[in-house]
Amino acid sequence: MGVSPTANVMHGHVLHAQSAICDALQSIDPTPIHSDTWSRPGGGGGLTRILSDGAVFEKAGVNVSAVYGSVTTESQEMFRRLLKSRGCEVDSIEGVEFFATGVSLVIHPVSPFIPTVHANYRYFECNVPGNDAIWWFGGGADLTPYYLFEEDVRHFHEQHKDICDQYDTSFYPQFKKQCDDYFYLPHRKETRGVGGIFYDYLHDRDQALLCDFSSAAAHRFIDAYLPIVRRRMSMDYTDRHKAWQEVRRGRYAEFNLVYDRGTAFGLKTDGRVESILMSMPPRARWIYGDFPNMTDQEATLLDVLSSPRDWID
Amino acid sequence: MGVSPTANVMHGHVLHAQSAICDALQSIDPTPIHSDTWSRPGGGGGLTRILSDGAVFEKAGVNVSAVYGSVTTESQEMFRRLLKSRGCEVDSIEGVEFFATGVSLVIHPVSPFIPTVHANYRYFECNVPGNDAIWWFGGGADLTPYYLFEEDVRHFHEQHKDICDQYDTSFYPQFKKQCDDYFYLPHRKETRGVGGIFYDYLHDRDQALLCDFSSAAAHRFIDAYLPIVRRRMSMDYTDRHKAWQEVRRGRYAEFNLVYDRGTAFGLKTDGRVESILMSMPPRARWIYGDFPNMTDQEATLLDVLSSPRDWID
Repeated sequence: MGVSPTANVMHGHVLHAQSAICDALQSIDPTPIHSDTWSRPGGGGGLTRILSDGAVFEKAGVNVSAVYGSVTTESQEMFRRLLKSRGCEVDSIEGVEFFATGVSLVIHPVSPFIPTVHANYRYFECNVPGNDAIWWFGGGADLTPYYLFEEDVRHFHEQHKDICDQYDTSFYPQFKKQCDDYFYLPHRKETRGVGGIFYDYLHDRDQALLCDFSSAAAHRFIDAYLPIVRRRMSMDYTDRHKAWQEVRRGRYAEFNLVYDRGTAFGLKTDGRVESILMSMPPRARWIYGDFPNMTDQEATLLDVLSSPRDWID
Repeated sequence: MGVSPTANVMHGHVLHAQSAICDALQSIDPTPIHSDTWSRPGGGGGLTRILSDGAVFEKAGVNVSAVYGSVTTESQEMFRRLLKSRGCEVDSIEGVEFFATGVSLVIHPVSPFIPTVHANYRYFECNVPGNDAIWWFGGGADLTPYYLFEEDVRHFHEQHKDICDQYDTSFYPQFKKQCDDYFYLPHRKETRGVGGIFYDYLHDRDQALLCDFSSAAAHRFIDAYLPIVRRRMSMDYTDRHKAWQEVRRGRYAEFNLVYDRGTAFGLKTDGRVESILMSMPPRARWIYGDFPNMTDQEATLLDVLSSPRDWID
């Protein structure tokens, strides 16, 4: 298939971001990173890089994929729904070719004082005869602390606001709200974490500019997250802190399996299970009822998750 | 609302089963059982009984509920779909009254040599003007071992076949297959466990007889499961056996959150979260890739899960 120049540029960007992020993680935790390349029967494939049971990172996965191919009879309905959800109503898309690439990462640290983090930057395009070229960018990064250190959350938001503002000052307020809305568990009446940014179907301005923005945001992950890790990695914690972290990681698992669109899409389209579920916490607990003898710090976290705050004045 | 005599009888049966099952569990593990009664704003409620961190049972929950009320404007669509899935097409069901009762249990033992078990027996009825009375029974029990002891699996199936055969010899073969089909994770290409029985929308014969059968099957749980617990509870196990159990419990969590109809229904209808998620494993792990240095016993389990066997000649 002929892909657009942007598709190739974005693929280069996400590979570069993956390698810069892995280098940054290794500068803190030198546990060897395992690499897996995989290919998709219909076309394309990916590179999954994963660090397990490190001194600082309990499980950190950084995945890049670039998949392409023809829309088959079986996947036609799914593609039609995907396009429709982005406002493109098309008659028939059988035989149409698509291309999608992105980097996605989830880092679950050992210490309950270091937040879990997730980020994902991606690009999609396809050509439907009789329609304008269809393409969009999606992405974002969000933080899931187990104990709340306000300066960490402010830092993470400030870094993301800064990179957004370099492209459009309307981005951050909009993407911050979309992040709070997306990472919400209705059955728990709480957000998954303290947010960050989230955008999807971004296509309303110059393609090259949006490609630059996505790449810059993916690279900014390093400055947004690693200072938090350095600040918290030497703090002592107890078994109780770890138990609380594991109970909260149960909620993380609930979000990913019940609500996350990417996970559902991947599992239903016969995606590569190991890469899709790379985001799952290394360990999770489910206890019946409230966590026993909840401390003020634990209650403060729940409070923030039940009513999202603005982190930047 | 006026409920049928069967509704009241079934409610009595499930309460009695709950209490007999809890007594049986306590005869093995005397850890105090915590009881919670709860009520549903729209009508009815339940009694959740739960044993946590026992010497034999890591987490064992036995829940009874009896809920009733009117179908509201908000829940109308959901009820229409529920009825349609059981073959009842109705025009309008707003204001129609329903009643549902059941007992459901999930037991996650400490020892990786004792299987997790799940059972659920329930009854539903509603009166839709212009239609015959709509009612059905549903239920079943299934076993999820971490290490395969064939005699345990055979015992569990034999006990369930025996109680089925007392009512209809066509039940067991049919319900055994439905169990294998229902407890299947397409993305893992494996069943959750080694099956048992599963039936739904059972209404094709005398109501009182089916009520008796459901009650007898619920009581049979004790003889089907407890001998397995007694046989395995003193066997020594290592951290590795426990790690394997926790990885497999991750699959249990995946099934419940991604595929289980009851869980999805409960979470989407604003059910009591603690009772719905009582089924979640106490601890679960997700590792990237295959379990390291898999033993023959572990490989044997996976083999059975990827192609369900007949356990009775």
